[in-house]
Amino acid sequence: MAAAAAAAAAATRLLRLAPRRLPSPKTCPFSALPLRPPAPLAATSRWRRFCAAAQDSAPAPPKTPASAEAAGETVGEFRRRTRVADVKGGGDEGAAWVGRQLAVRGWVRTCRAQRTVTFVEVNDGSCLSNMQCVLTPDTEGYDQIDSITTGASVLVEGVIASSQGGKQKVELKVSKITMIGESDPTSFPIQKKRASREFLRTVAHLRPRTNTFGAMARVRNALAYATHKFFQDNGFVWVSSPIITASDCEGAGEQFYVTTLLSNSAEGGCLVNNIPSTKDGRVDWSQDFFCKPAFLTVSGQLNGETYASALSDIYTFGPTFRAENSNTSRHLAEFWMIEPELAFADLNDDMACASSYLQYVVKYILENCKEDMDFFNTWIEKGIIDRLNDVVEKNFVHLSYSDAVELLVGSKKKFEFPVKWGLDLQSEHERYITEVAFGGRPVIIRDYPKEIKAFYMRQNDDGKTVAAMDLLVPRVGELIGGSQREERLDYLEARLDELNLNKDSYWWYLDLRRFGSVPHAGFGLGFERLVQFVTGIDNIRDVIPFPRVPGSAEF
Amino acid sequence: MAAAAAAAAAATRLLRLAPRRLPSPKTCPFSALPLRPPAPLAATSRWRRFCAAAQDSAPAPPKTPASAEAAGETVGEFRRRTRVADVKGGGDEGAAWVGRQLAVRGWVRTCRAQRTVTFVEVNDGSCLSNMQCVLTPDTEGYDQIDSITTGASVLVEGVIASSQGGKQKVELKVSKITMIGESDPTSFPIQKKRASREFLRTVAHLRPRTNTFGAMARVRNALAYATHKFFQDNGFVWVSSPIITASDCEGAGEQFYVTTLLSNSAEGGCLVNNIPSTKDGRVDWSQDFFCKPAFLTVSGQLNGETYASALSDIYTFGPTFRAENSNTSRHLAEFWMIEPELAFADLNDDMACASSYLQYVVKYILENCKEDMDFFNTWIEKGIIDRLNDVVEKNFVHLSYSDAVELLVGSKKKFEFPVKWGLDLQSEHERYITEVAFGGRPVIIRDYPKEIKAFYMRQNDDGKTVAAMDLLVPRVGELIGGSQREERLDYLEARLDELNLNKDSYWWYLDLRRFGSVPHAGFGLGFERLVQFVTGIDNIRDVIPFPRVPGSAEF
Repeated sequence: MAAAAAAAAAATRLLRLAPRRLPSPKTCPFSALPLRPPAPLAATSRWRRFCAAAQDSAPAPPKTPASAEAAGETVGEFRRRTRVADVKGGGDEGAAWVGRQLAVRGWVRTCRAQRTVTFVEVNDGSCLSNMQCVLTPDTEGYDQIDSITTGASVLVEGVIASSQGGKQKVELKVSKITMIGESDPTSFPIQKKRASREFLRTVAHLRPRTNTFGAMARVRNALAYATHKFFQDNGFVWVSSPIITASDCEGAGEQFYVTTLLSNSAEGGCLVNNIPSTKDGRVDWSQDFFCKPAFLTVSGQLNGETYASALSDIYTFGPTFRAENSNTSRHLAEFWMIEPELAFADLNDDMACASSYLQYVVKYILENCKEDMDFFNTWIEKGIIDRLNDVVEKNFVHLSYSDAVELLVGSKKKFEFPVKWGLDLQSEHERYITEVAFGGRPVIIRDYPKEIKAFYMRQNDDGKTVAAMDLLVPRVGELIGGSQREERLDYLEARLDELNLNKDSYWWYLDLRRFGSVPHAGFGLGFERLVQFVTGIDNIRDVIPFPRVPGSAEF
Repeated sequence: MAAAAAAAAAATRLLRLAPRRLPSPKTCPFSALPLRPPAPLAATSRWRRFCAAAQDSAPAPPKTPASAEAAGETVGEFRRRTRVADVKGGGDEGAAWVGRQLAVRGWVRTCRAQRTVTFVEVNDGSCLSNMQCVLTPDTEGYDQIDSITTGASVLVEGVIASSQGGKQKVELKVSKITMIGESDPTSFPIQKKRASREFLRTVAHLRPRTNTFGAMARVRNALAYATHKFFQDNGFVWVSSPIITASDCEGAGEQFYVTTLLSNSAEGGCLVNNIPSTKDGRVDWSQDFFCKPAFLTVSGQLNGETYASALSDIYTFGPTFRAENSNTSRHLAEFWMIEPELAFADLNDDMACASSYLQYVVKYILENCKEDMDFFNTWIEKGIIDRLNDVVEKNFVHLSYSDAVELLVGSKKKFEFPVKWGLDLQSEHERYITEVAFGGRPVIIRDYPKEIKAFYMRQNDDGKTVAAMDLLVPRVGELIGGSQREERLDYLEARLDELNLNKDSYWWYLDLRRFGSVPHAGFGLGFERLVQFVTGIDNIRDVIPFPRVPGSAEF
């Protein structure tokens, strides 16, 4: 204690004696405090949120201000920076800001020079809208006008004024423009002319600077947050299921191996002969990092069940993987899954939870991403907002698999794939049911033949079907798949035997049925499918920042 | 359109004609509606949240009730289930519930038979507290008393009464107990006697049923949600950075390979001779899934910078990996990272953001996880609540690396590792600074020698240091590491050359400096370190559900 006190004293002394040697914090010219926003908006805008957070979290003054001062510098408040969304995001589209000073930092989308004025559209990513900035030859920094090109980053300062153009309510009369980072107009890949989605995938590091991908990123973010809000508000606990798994519970056919055996120990790449092997020439897994074969997870469900069997209701939200050689617009090798698991619940509870969840998150983005959704409605898929409103407002249809088969057979429609009890429903069937037969309403189909469903699903009393459900939506088809889990040890073991699965591998999963087993149910939702459904974006590679598909893991 | 209408009519007809064939939903006996909670608590308890959500999200009545009825069954409301936390979580510890009926579903923690009554402690995972259930020989189901053992799952119904014991305010006078799932007392691994943490790792599927791991899971969940809340409230966009990466941007030494080349094509395991190879005997990556070597990510930062260069402020929250052979209590092969990235920001902004973040999440769990935190304060680390209150209330110290070195040298303390300008600070040094020199206050050290920091950190004007910062906290040491990024293309390229790194691999990262470069900064936080810091749990393997470490990826 004495030593500690002495050291503290020494530290204090050091700092008190040598304040000159402490570097004064360098101020970045581009992060200086912005001008204050008008009072009426302050309460609802994003502005001051950080400060509010800081105040919330430190309501009491520091208990030792004197020593704190003496002991060194303390961290100041987080920067207060006004964003375009703060100005234009309100219902009045910025009208309340007219006459106020503002500094905007962002990237130039377009620059149109007219005889006496130049219009520069600046976007800071906080919303779809640009800030239209009006420059005249009197504007400070106007001599740099030639470098104000698409893609450049700038700081513009001026006064908000009513806009005479019809496209926006307000614009910024610029008194000063500062070039932050130039963008060579001959080499910047994303020029004003519309670039194809295929091309934009080759510049995935720059595509968030386009309207479509900026809007996608914001809606994707809102969907993720709404997911957390929904489950948290309902008492579910987020559980991080493992990404690397060495259990044999899932078929390894479509799994990626995770290994350190292929490390480039030799110059020029890993020599096959250097890979540790057993006497009979097989890969010696005992020398791998985990001492056995390890894979990337295809689902967190089995792990999730363990926590549901202790905490009652849990959900996972994490990446999952398929080493499937599917080069389609519907498949990714790496995608995010949401997998809730409910204890003391049956299939009806599961269906109700899935429906409530979907309605909640769709309503959330309709209310919180209006501008971006208007963009998708206009440019990506006309009528998508109406379709989503239907999802929120209409009850979901549900019917049994048997009835679905009867409906399809009775439709007399020619399908590519056969329809027959016992065969799985294909995408064309699912889309027919939700899009045509029920006119765009989401449909839940339940009680599928056990042969086409997973081993862990609970057998129904008929001995032929299991308590499984798929939630279908228009255009996407299956969005959610779930089931009540088989909680009866004898049924589960018998099913594993029937399928020639090794019971020993499932020892811990079976333990859940040995010790305090409870009826439970859950579902899985491919997050990217949800983003597709909500935005109308066709290709799944365009609803995730950096898609991983066969032959490509760029960036 | 005519075809669609006809099909819809056919579908409706089918269902109208055949309502008998639609299976009526089977009701799970354990998920039936519970008894209503007392009115005073309803507004603040978790009860009805689901229903509230459902109502929120579907305020308008279905527009086509008639056809909805005709078209099939619709999904009902999500189950309303009262949890122990709903009863005991309020400030009155359940006093308002006295006299009310209640059904509790959960797992038996202990069962103590006395002469006339039997006390059964039931936990449902919603909170640390058990519901003490009082059984008498008159209780329906009392004949099953011998199977009411630790680990079994039960449904208990009865009336809430004031408890005469001092340990709880209320208890449940049980009128009926129903066995859901038995638990063989001779084989259930977690008996009442305290099991060691080491042992519990071998039953990671059951350990959430203990007090420590239940509390850990709830606090971990709260920290994750608080993280999202903080960044969302401040306008940051969550970006899912890729897990699989084929870019050479990070040193591959400590990375896991992700491959499909080792698939078990042969019976009995992968034959080394079957691994595709080039003429000179090296692994032929062109035949791998991604047509080149692919790895598990060690950081999402570089990808995060691309989105910050479009959306301004973003954060990642996802798993990251290290194939490091470190069998310590501080290292995991798979862990979760939070990496915000701020555009138009310098190191001071970064430090302020890190401080605000940390104070926010710590305050959040102190306010929202009181019971669990009391448990940690009593059983895991005495005084931890005071220590965390200090973090919330006191300003953080910050000083330069140079001053930190001077402080350590001046301390005259004998350290295991040498202290000298240019050498990295070791854990013992960091802990001395935060624990001893500044008496438990978090400390931010900034401006480190460039030789010991990463290539992307922004060079300071002195030419010797970079704008890096580490946030140190007592006991854990470095919790957060961040920096301002080098946004000047010429500086960054020169640094890559100095370090003999291949500029071509970084083409897209350099593009961010070519096209509209902006000053930006960010930090990384190991989520499990944060959970350790907040709970006081020593070993990092005990703050993640299923730890992955060298030699073990069980469950």
